[in-house]
Amino acid sequence: MTVYIFEFIGTALLLLLGNGIVANIVLKGTKGSDAGWTGIALAWGIAVFVGVFVSADVSGSHLNPAVTLGLATAGKFPWELVPGYMLAQVMGGMMGNLLVWLTYKKQYEATEQDPEAMLVTFSTVPAIRSPFWNLVTETIGTFVLVFGVFYIAGGTISDEPIKLGALDALPVALLVMGIGFGLGGPTGYAINPARDLGPRIMHAILPLKGKGSSDWNYAWVPIVGPLIGGALAAWVYLWIGI
Amino acid sequence: MTVYIFEFIGTALLLLLGNGIVANIVLKGTKGSDAGWTGIALAWGIAVFVGVFVSADVSGSHLNPAVTLGLATAGKFPWELVPGYMLAQVMGGMMGNLLVWLTYKKQYEATEQDPEAMLVTFSTVPAIRSPFWNLVTETIGTFVLVFGVFYIAGGTISDEPIKLGALDALPVALLVMGIGFGLGGPTGYAINPARDLGPRIMHAILPLKGKGSSDWNYAWVPIVGPLIGGALAAWVYLWIGI
Amino acid sequence: MTVYIFEFIGTALLLLLGNGIVANIVLKGTKGSDAGWTGIALAWGIAVFVGVFVSADVSGSHLNPAVTLGLATAGKFPWELVPGYMLAQVMGGMMGNLLVWLTYKKQYEATEQDPEAMLVTFSTVPAIRSPFWNLVTETIGTFVLVFGVFYIAGGTISDEPIKLGALDALPVALLVMGIGFGLGGPTGYAINPARDLGPRIMHAILPLKGKGSSDWNYAWVPIVGPLIGGALAAWVYLWIGI
Amino acid sequence: MTVYIFEFIGTALLLLLGNGIVANIVLKGTKGSDAGWTGIALAWGIAVFVGVFVSADVSGSHLNPAVTLGLATAGKFPWELVPGYMLAQVMGGMMGNLLVWLTYKKQYEATEQDPEAMLVTFSTVPAIRSPFWNLVTETIGTFVLVFGVFYIAGGTISDEPIKLGALDALPVALLVMGIGFGLGGPTGYAINPARDLGPRIMHAILPLKGKGSSDWNYAWVPIVGPLIGGALAAWVYLWIGI
Repeated sequence: MTVYIFEFIGTALLLLLGNGIVANIVLKGTKGSDAGWTGIALAWGIAVFVGVFVSADVSGSHLNPAVTLGLATAGKFPWELVPGYMLAQVMGGMMGNLLVWLTYKKQYEATEQDPEAMLVTFSTVPAIRSPFWNLVTETIGTFVLVFGVFYIAGGTISDEPIKLGALDALPVALLVMGIGFGLGGPTGYAINPARDLGPRIMHAILPLKGKGSSDWNYAWVPIVGPLIGGALAAWVYLWIGI
Repeated sequence: MTVYIFEFIGTALLLLLGNGIVANIVLKGTKGSDAGWTGIALAWGIAVFVGVFVSADVSGSHLNPAVTLGLATAGKFPWELVPGYMLAQVMGGMMGNLLVWLTYKKQYEATEQDPEAMLVTFSTVPAIRSPFWNLVTETIGTFVLVFGVFYIAGGTISDEPIKLGALDALPVALLVMGIGFGLGGPTGYAINPARDLGPRIMHAILPLKGKGSSDWNYAWVPIVGPLIGGALAAWVYLWIGI
Repeated sequence: MTVYIFEFIGTALLLLLGNGIVANIVLKGTKGSDAGWTGIALAWGIAVFVGVFVSADVSGSHLNPAVTLGLATAGKFPWELVPGYMLAQVMGGMMGNLLVWLTYKKQYEATEQDPEAMLVTFSTVPAIRSPFWNLVTETIGTFVLVFGVFYIAGGTISDEPIKLGALDALPVALLVMGIGFGLGGPTGYAINPARDLGPRIMHAILPLKGKGSSDWNYAWVPIVGPLIGGALAAWVYLWIGI
Repeated sequence: MTVYIFEFIGTALLLLLGNGIVANIVLKGTKGSDAGWTGIALAWGIAVFVGVFVSADVSGSHLNPAVTLGLATAGKFPWELVPGYMLAQVMGGMMGNLLVWLTYKKQYEATEQDPEAMLVTFSTVPAIRSPFWNLVTETIGTFVLVFGVFYIAGGTISDEPIKLGALDALPVALLVMGIGFGLGGPTGYAINPARDLGPRIMHAILPLKGKGSSDWNYAWVPIVGPLIGGALAAWVYLWIGI
């Protein structure tokens, strides 16, 4: 049970700090509206750092169903833990965004005329909508993430769970910063089904005044793309065989 | 006595470098007015790094009454040292801002038409004033800070003081950068009573030409919110039990 | 063979994340157009971090013919591996940019009126064209890179291959960030023949709608300059004799 | 002799990368003109990182007469090496800026109408000219630098030279970033006599078309202020006695 709690906590911290910077930039009445994409990319990387650092020693800090699926596919994480990890991650994503909402309560009220600004503080919205190419982008981004995690975690192929330790927090954070800068432009880099689905559910639930659609039409892209990317990374990793 | 001196020095360095970047951005006649929120968030994190690095080996680098209260609440810091630590931190905050004033003396003179710009180089001012929600924001931000410190410091539950060591300076700095980016938008993230109260006292004392009110009406929010957040973090930490 | 594969992978990751940030900034219809030069310099450094971290334990992470030539010139890397390393690096550069194109497919389509914007997402274009002085700039930039790598890798003079280890990834990344900020202004700091030639070949091959010339006239500068700079660094390093 | 060579090299690298970012921002015809103060502060910190990393194992990386004076004052560096170190640092500063000039040769030509832009790529120019208060600013900034170096270097009081090791490169770099963000606004933070005097001599020597005065009237401020600050840091360090 404890591992699930720490996946929940780690993912909640990831979303709180990560979508916090988005709220800081896009909502009205904040102090950080000029942080820009450099702020976005740095802050999401730091959010990963915090989430990984807090949870690493207990759950191994997947914080991401694509990571969990990739590790399981590579035989490095027991399949029976996969559903619990994924559920904890999605619930953590919901919790994180609930706290973003509380932190920026007055700012959400000030932004009630702009439903899209509100939505992007929860879920990703592509810059140019094109389901197929958005899927490609999310797949490539998540491939880089999970492929990198294999070499950062550095374990050998076995049934033992791979755990990201606290010392891996910085390399993983830099990896996510790099993905944000380099691959985040087209879709806002979900690269994590829990990061997108959890907040989208919360967007649907919360009594946000003036909120528009939760854009469920797009919801499958940042779920399917990352899962494909994570599994692909596992196959390439095994094929290289080191 | 030495531990108090190092809390004083560490907090003074924190405020000098931290409010220095604010002065650099908001005062007239500086070179760094375009640093933006990305500069704010990075610089305050680095200010924490410097303050922690210098004081860690001696005082354990709380530099923040909310951290001191949180650690004491969790049984990881002796209650009898709490008042001395807190006093040293507030005095350090005063000293740090005195040095900001000396560093930017000509710039303060150039800004005498803008009392609010002067005030924010001392104490935090919320973007949208709402005592209750500002309190919520400060509570959440400080919760994340102190909760993170528990896992970074990593000690077991005992009466021994927990000390942040020099090697903890970078993780804590990243944690504060993350809070600045993600949670600093509504209130300017005091997340530290000494960071707000010490400078506010100094604002009231200093012969700043053209200064306005020290905004004492708001002063309780960045004291009470952080103290609640720090205690809350301790309770959750103990409840999780790891 | 494995070392070549990892040089290929490492250089592909370097170009994917590195030219990804360029695409994010200059192409139409992205989210990161405001990242600016600070984003460029940070992101390319992080791209180096990721490429080095993944490949370090196997190939020693040259990822750059100028590094390979410099190490070989200094007697720290066997000459017989040089051609294979360089070929793998150029092919990795091609692969990386192919993935940039797939990631930003819709954005390339949206930018078809601007052939120069498209070109800079592949190869470097000087700010002021002047073959001689552009060559000087690339030579100085690469000198700093390879000279720094000698002291970061820290080996003694022998015929054993020098390998950048995973722990060298951060220093090298910071070195490249420093070169980007400080020396990247005139030519866009190729400082790596594979980083420029591989993508230029890919630019010539890919069916980019509206693409203009691949600017082959300039292509020799970011090849010759870095090779001179790398060899020069080796000579100075040997001459200092430590 | 070797220690002097490495002080020379380290300081040359510091100035090349450090004033390189200034050139990138203020000269015409560069790619990095939007890097802003965030770019300045990060890049100078990284320049320190590179200079320290390369020279640390040999010379202990002072790279700054104020550091040399501070360490000698505290009894941690032999006085007989002080003149040689300082001379090597000033000559390194000259060499670094010579290389900045070669790197940005065409950009200097494009900027010949703007002598002040040219000057700031060599020496510091205060935002508001006020010799006394500029001196105070430089003194406080250098005090923080040298005081921090004592705790980062961490040695005990003796006649043995204190050496910054390669592992100290990152803390010192962050310290300088913090000073740049927080205390650099009024004077451009020379905080290093060699960083200002060496380039100023080079500015006077080089055949820069359209260059104006080398502003020798101000030259004493970024020499005297840092030396006072460094000595002051030593006295406070000894007085605290830890």
